[in-house]
Amino acid sequence: MATKILFCLLSLLFALPSHAQRPRARDMGIEIGTLPTGTYNAITDVKGVLVGHVTLIEGSGELVVGKGPVRTGVTAIVPHGEDIYRNNVFAAAEALNGNGEMTGMAWINERGQLEVPVVLTNTLSVGEGYSGVVAYMLKQGTGRVPLPVVAECYDGGLNDIAGRHVKINHVVEAIENATGGAVPEGSVGAGTGMRAYQFKAGIGTASRVVPDGHTIGVLVNANCGRRRELLIAGVPVGRELSVQTSPTRDGSIIVVIATDAPLVPHQLRRLCKRAAMGIGRTGTVSRTSSGDFAIAFSTAYRLSRSRADRDTITTLRDGRLTAIFQATIEATEEAIVNRPRQSHNACVTA
Amino acid sequence: MATKILFCLLSLLFALPSHAQRPRARDMGIEIGTLPTGTYNAITDVKGVLVGHVTLIEGSGELVVGKGPVRTGVTAIVPHGEDIYRNNVFAAAEALNGNGEMTGMAWINERGQLEVPVVLTNTLSVGEGYSGVVAYMLKQGTGRVPLPVVAECYDGGLNDIAGRHVKINHVVEAIENATGGAVPEGSVGAGTGMRAYQFKAGIGTASRVVPDGHTIGVLVNANCGRRRELLIAGVPVGRELSVQTSPTRDGSIIVVIATDAPLVPHQLRRLCKRAAMGIGRTGTVSRTSSGDFAIAFSTAYRLSRSRADRDTITTLRDGRLTAIFQATIEATEEAIVNRPRQSHNACVTA
Amino acid sequence: MATKILFCLLSLLFALPSHAQRPRARDMGIEIGTLPTGTYNAITDVKGVLVGHVTLIEGSGELVVGKGPVRTGVTAIVPHGEDIYRNNVFAAAEALNGNGEMTGMAWINERGQLEVPVVLTNTLSVGEGYSGVVAYMLKQGTGRVPLPVVAECYDGGLNDIAGRHVKINHVVEAIENATGGAVPEGSVGAGTGMRAYQFKAGIGTASRVVPDGHTIGVLVNANCGRRRELLIAGVPVGRELSVQTSPTRDGSIIVVIATDAPLVPHQLRRLCKRAAMGIGRTGTVSRTSSGDFAIAFSTAYRLSRSRADRDTITTLRDGRLTAIFQATIEATEEAIVNRPRQSHNACVTA
Amino acid sequence: MATKILFCLLSLLFALPSHAQRPRARDMGIEIGTLPTGTYNAITDVKGVLVGHVTLIEGSGELVVGKGPVRTGVTAIVPHGEDIYRNNVFAAAEALNGNGEMTGMAWINERGQLEVPVVLTNTLSVGEGYSGVVAYMLKQGTGRVPLPVVAECYDGGLNDIAGRHVKINHVVEAIENATGGAVPEGSVGAGTGMRAYQFKAGIGTASRVVPDGHTIGVLVNANCGRRRELLIAGVPVGRELSVQTSPTRDGSIIVVIATDAPLVPHQLRRLCKRAAMGIGRTGTVSRTSSGDFAIAFSTAYRLSRSRADRDTITTLRDGRLTAIFQATIEATEEAIVNRPRQSHNACVTA
Repeated sequence: MATKILFCLLSLLFALPSHAQRPRARDMGIEIGTLPTGTYNAITDVKGVLVGHVTLIEGSGELVVGKGPVRTGVTAIVPHGEDIYRNNVFAAAEALNGNGEMTGMAWINERGQLEVPVVLTNTLSVGEGYSGVVAYMLKQGTGRVPLPVVAECYDGGLNDIAGRHVKINHVVEAIENATGGAVPEGSVGAGTGMRAYQFKAGIGTASRVVPDGHTIGVLVNANCGRRRELLIAGVPVGRELSVQTSPTRDGSIIVVIATDAPLVPHQLRRLCKRAAMGIGRTGTVSRTSSGDFAIAFSTAYRLSRSRADRDTITTLRDGRLTAIFQATIEATEEAIVNRPRQSHNACVTA
Repeated sequence: MATKILFCLLSLLFALPSHAQRPRARDMGIEIGTLPTGTYNAITDVKGVLVGHVTLIEGSGELVVGKGPVRTGVTAIVPHGEDIYRNNVFAAAEALNGNGEMTGMAWINERGQLEVPVVLTNTLSVGEGYSGVVAYMLKQGTGRVPLPVVAECYDGGLNDIAGRHVKINHVVEAIENATGGAVPEGSVGAGTGMRAYQFKAGIGTASRVVPDGHTIGVLVNANCGRRRELLIAGVPVGRELSVQTSPTRDGSIIVVIATDAPLVPHQLRRLCKRAAMGIGRTGTVSRTSSGDFAIAFSTAYRLSRSRADRDTITTLRDGRLTAIFQATIEATEEAIVNRPRQSHNACVTA
Repeated sequence: MATKILFCLLSLLFALPSHAQRPRARDMGIEIGTLPTGTYNAITDVKGVLVGHVTLIEGSGELVVGKGPVRTGVTAIVPHGEDIYRNNVFAAAEALNGNGEMTGMAWINERGQLEVPVVLTNTLSVGEGYSGVVAYMLKQGTGRVPLPVVAECYDGGLNDIAGRHVKINHVVEAIENATGGAVPEGSVGAGTGMRAYQFKAGIGTASRVVPDGHTIGVLVNANCGRRRELLIAGVPVGRELSVQTSPTRDGSIIVVIATDAPLVPHQLRRLCKRAAMGIGRTGTVSRTSSGDFAIAFSTAYRLSRSRADRDTITTLRDGRLTAIFQATIEATEEAIVNRPRQSHNACVTA
Repeated sequence: MATKILFCLLSLLFALPSHAQRPRARDMGIEIGTLPTGTYNAITDVKGVLVGHVTLIEGSGELVVGKGPVRTGVTAIVPHGEDIYRNNVFAAAEALNGNGEMTGMAWINERGQLEVPVVLTNTLSVGEGYSGVVAYMLKQGTGRVPLPVVAECYDGGLNDIAGRHVKINHVVEAIENATGGAVPEGSVGAGTGMRAYQFKAGIGTASRVVPDGHTIGVLVNANCGRRRELLIAGVPVGRELSVQTSPTRDGSIIVVIATDAPLVPHQLRRLCKRAAMGIGRTGTVSRTSSGDFAIAFSTAYRLSRSRADRDTITTLRDGRLTAIFQATIEATEEAIVNRPRQSHNACVTA
């Protein structure tokens, strides 16, 4: 089995031109875990979840701050197609290694609810991400006071990050254009300038269906790990690869977990913790300078802003959670492994 | 004693014209706690700490989104006059009731350090606050990747908050103009549009000196509480005041705690928790929709970005903390009480 | 008003012989807060909640370890009269200042449920408290694997704590004898050897009814504070009292919060945080060596150990929580103030 | 490589009689990670750390509660050979999945210090573990008020757990007999009745030395996982093994991390979180009913109970932590893998 994996990986890395359509891990025979995937093997397998990317690629060659090269973008994960500000969902968020930023966490964990789309972008554009969500919300109604959820990874290795090319309208566009179905992966949206395990990385997604029929979908923006640490399906392929690469800055990973299982906030927090186990299986040690965050939400209920005083919910017993934990770990691991690709495009010296 | 307090408060509320220079609580004979204050009875009594305000006041009358009236601003608390990004200080932060935002908390609590000025502004301008800190840092060097600390309170009761009048340059200006000495209080900077206990409120500050000579300074942006809940020096003056006011949106409070005591991060976190006790003594119940956050830092050591591997620090034993806890509670309470003032200026209907 | 309070307090302290039936704060005209109390102004006003005390008083005079004097005991708070192990309730627990012990917290906060009675005892008898709950549970069925909740305060100032006079059967007895109705307060059960604000203290209880009819009941075991810090209904009576007392070891407080409001775990955690505000209002600064813990549970639902996979619950919206927060703070403050009494009985030199 | 591992494992499982001296993973060519081990590949490689076991094995055959069979015990990890109560060490503790108990966590995390030996035992004997540490401490001085750290795993699959055969003197004995050097593993001490991945499991230990010379040692009590989940050095051997086993109760794992690196409490907490990554690499999903806890301490400094007000410490920069994180993950994984063995001895039906 290990031989097969290594062969696939090497094909993946070296045989394909950088502009080719690369297959996903599973298409190459790499199987992560034992649970079946959803239709698209994507976070959008959780009914109603939408994903939108705005990808910014411009220029190449030497870095000139403010000019480029630009290799960055925005990714928005929208929990459902209704007005999310008026129809919140249960949620939880957790810093796995907090050398980074995910705004909105205090609010999510205090109230156990999510009222905004989750926005991913680069480290120095969190402000624009925040203002972008505010702008999107004010378009729906000037009385709104949202607390945006914006998470970042550092793309300064390939992108003119100090040039701050992400603008408010890019964020609004990513949210408004979010769709269901197959999710573009890799160097798109917030993943455009990411690297993981010193390969070109970025957005990855996967899903699992547990025996009782509930779906768990994960989307990651992966910018973590040193190549020699890489494990694929448990095999330490990183150590076998002799490719010499220059050191990069230590990166981060954002994990967004969606499920249609009717979980309440303290249960969703437990899913966030399982993201760390999925990350760990790909070999990283969650380096000291890594910003690793997870957010989980359940689409099972809408908590409306109506004047009602109470909500009636039917929630899963704890005994049912283990399968969902397994699904979360497997989908996280696979979402990351769907990502490692050969570096291409611009090479910026930070 | 209670009579004296009530008399003072009533003078404060009704006798003075709104544009007059109003005395601070202590000047009127209201004494909070038993520890002595520092020179200015302000956060700047902690040597090196600087405070800068940018106050935006424009227009009056009816709310027209995008036009005004504008009653908002930015307040920056700078831990010391050196380059903070290259000379971090130990820090901790805590959400007391997290229906609000303080960015940068995950990073502070993971590493136990603060590398940026603390910026306060209104709820919908957190993005500009964030980008403002990034802009300030990139001015010093384009390779910087700061994780800003921006905390907000809602000023939409008096300010055209949806008009988003705070700009990036206001943030840079508040940081660059920060100074020591006496701190302007009330309707200045981020406090411009705040109300607490249904009085005009905003920025307040106070300090205490503990017996071993260390100073604890607190600065708050207060936007919390219902008038009938108000306690001053323990006296339920709120219940006695018959002033009828319309309901406001439930607010928030940000508490910034500085000390020159050589505390390490897990000790500073305990100071943050004492902020809640100081807040509680002013009568609020920390309403469900309140965004109450505390951040504490120690100026005793600089953790530089040099290549050194180790830091040698002399830190206080736990037995010495109780006096510092008391100082934190007293200074928090007094900083809030320094704030309640009669509503004036614009009245915006959100 | 302050005069009235002081007069009442002084009567309380000095006029009554130590063996007399002392009135509760409210009976003396001291009113804490504004919400109405339940029938008994006790935690047992939450329907179904039972309290049991076992009080151990024996000997007097000089301390001889292993002999006495004995001034200690056990208090059990039983969430409802059914089999709690088979019919769990939603719960949360929080360390406010963790220099003490409340076992079972990790389990409560992971699953959000309570499956055992809450047991209070002295610091060195937590082991017996734990084994006592295990013994009680194994009496019901040998296959049970409970994770007991035992919280402690230090009573070594009045009790031969090193003699470890609490035995497993005392714990079983406290649980089995728990009843509803009026709750004995002061020097009973786990409160037998406690002191607060350098007065004789111990068990106190109070309750509040919020406008929608839900009841919040609080029981404390108070062993905290220095006399000069004492506030009663906001008045710093501690500073006025000239009674000279020897320093005691710094103590602790355990706060048990019960409600029939249908709250889910992340909401109950917020009640625990309000306990700190109630404690703060009595004047303590939560000293560094204090073990201050809160646990909150809702009796609204039974989560059974049946094979069912789901629970249907009707839970309160966040907008309804503020009144419950206020009730928690008021009941905590009153439960503590119901306790300060003149020191009597044994005086042990630790 | 995978073939070699499988071969080794199969030898391990089937070729050796249960009473034979079984080799450790590394002796069989299974290498976990890349860092070198310490002398004993054990927690005792951290200078000064001592481990003591008391193993209780008695009877066999049918379970008769109170009679046996007895397959349980106590393991004590003593941070150093001096009086730990008078010479505390920096520490942190974390619930990874809190369906279990580790007492003393609130205290450790509030003060950042450990003042007692860490004691491991079975779930229903935590009370005796607690009282045992109290008894041990009172032997040294009757004025001591320790807050014990006792963590448990469930051994009711092989042991008459309801018979509660662990007594206070067993705990005292485990502490007093603790020694350095090679550590007995497997079915000893608290590990006597444990199973992991449906193999006989229990105590395991390993260590790593990082490039700057600091040592990280880990000791686990492993009682977790389903066989089909088992990964060894990344290879899913669990899926390949056709051995049919009956379902067991879901178990737990306790991870004790020692280091001589001069880390302060907020850094030690980060080591605890890495334990989860080491656990995850062995394949478990940290099932809902698992009690997974980690505690980390540094032997670099003694925080004495003298009257000194300050401590001077030289602590590592964050940039030095990544190697220590890697060491923690590798040592945790190897400590667990050192454990899986064929089930032997008593078979109790719970």
